[in-house]
Amino acid sequence: MNELLYEGKAKRVFRTDDPEKLLLEYKDDATAFNGKKKESFRGKGELNNRISSEVFRKLEEKGVPSHFLERLSDTEQLVRKTEIIPLEVVVRNLATGSLVRRIGIEEKTPLTPPLIELFYKNDELDDPLINDRHALMLSDLTYEELMKIKEKALEVNDVLIEIFEDCDLDLVDFKLEFGRNTEGSILLSDEVSPDTCRLWDKQTGEKMDKDVFREGTGELVPVYEKILQRLEDATCAK
Amino acid sequence: MNELLYEGKAKRVFRTDDPEKLLLEYKDDATAFNGKKKESFRGKGELNNRISSEVFRKLEEKGVPSHFLERLSDTEQLVRKTEIIPLEVVVRNLATGSLVRRIGIEEKTPLTPPLIELFYKNDELDDPLINDRHALMLSDLTYEELMKIKEKALEVNDVLIEIFEDCDLDLVDFKLEFGRNTEGSILLSDEVSPDTCRLWDKQTGEKMDKDVFREGTGELVPVYEKILQRLEDATCAK
Repeated sequence: MNELLYEGKAKRVFRTDDPEKLLLEYKDDATAFNGKKKESFRGKGELNNRISSEVFRKLEEKGVPSHFLERLSDTEQLVRKTEIIPLEVVVRNLATGSLVRRIGIEEKTPLTPPLIELFYKNDELDDPLINDRHALMLSDLTYEELMKIKEKALEVNDVLIEIFEDCDLDLVDFKLEFGRNTEGSILLSDEVSPDTCRLWDKQTGEKMDKDVFREGTGELVPVYEKILQRLEDATCAK
Repeated sequence: MNELLYEGKAKRVFRTDDPEKLLLEYKDDATAFNGKKKESFRGKGELNNRISSEVFRKLEEKGVPSHFLERLSDTEQLVRKTEIIPLEVVVRNLATGSLVRRIGIEEKTPLTPPLIELFYKNDELDDPLINDRHALMLSDLTYEELMKIKEKALEVNDVLIEIFEDCDLDLVDFKLEFGRNTEGSILLSDEVSPDTCRLWDKQTGEKMDKDVFREGTGELVPVYEKILQRLEDATCAK
């Protein structure tokens, strides 16, 4: 059994025999409002593992590398080892959610260029919104690295928009995390899934992401199944 | 009687016969926690009018102009007309208050260079912290103007530190507001007083600002009287 290094709300991280690699195990837990709402959905871990693997594979194909190496099993994937930078980097194409509540702009306002927000990854403090100076105080990033992360986030946005366009989905917003690898370089890490992206059906506007759980408006597993199906169909259609 | 244009928590703004000038009347009300705590202190309006006039006069003397023109009476001052930009620009030299609560850094951590935070001036939304992009979305500022405002805030900080040093006070943090004058230029506006600055006695560390009211640890009027006295003594000592 590999040593458990860290357990988060949706994943466990294990050491492997290779000091450059980690094993991620996706859990069935869904949480919202910083863990205040919590439920477990059989199959969710597998779906997010498959979805995130597929998205990372497509990102790599389109020139955006990440920590992802390969999917090992239904719920596990092998990734490059990184030290996670304690920032949530949110990119928004349309205003919704906490942005609308925070600054009172109208729901669905298009954000051009896309809006980047930084949050401090800290459960006890409820992941507060922070500005660039806070981010530099709370991480070991240099200013240049923070600017690079923002550029990278916009690049990921461009490619994810394409990927989800092929799935007939609008990418409304999403959260990225970055890590520092053993050589000190910064790499896209964590996951890209309906837990971390808002995805709206292009035809119906239907929400096809964790909002169905947050808002209690639908069944999580069938929605995530549809996302995986569409990603796989898009791959086959190529 | 001049026409009332706006009534805030601590001041009223009146039109004057000159379209380029406004009259500010300082009220006796003290509010904290975005108006959730409220009390009236006889003499507070007069004290803040005198303190703010004196500080703006000293700022001008040291090369930092503002909307301030002259003190007209115990509670009134004449200012240049500006359209207030809906941002609170906070400059911090030492960590305390909402910063410590937000990001969990240690109380009194020195902030070098000084930390600038932007808040959206909006009572209904509880004056939320925002980032630069939010500020551009919520105001008519250009990016260059926002950067200029930040530079100006740091310049004001340098000069205020000097002014309060002469009063044996440490300037811990403060809030500025800026307005756009009738020619479109951006000008330091609002007030600079113990309502908007945290001032700690250099010898004893005693809090000599609105925190005595916020935290219920002392009498507001005698503290504000001391600030005025020290400002006037510093002027006479020159």
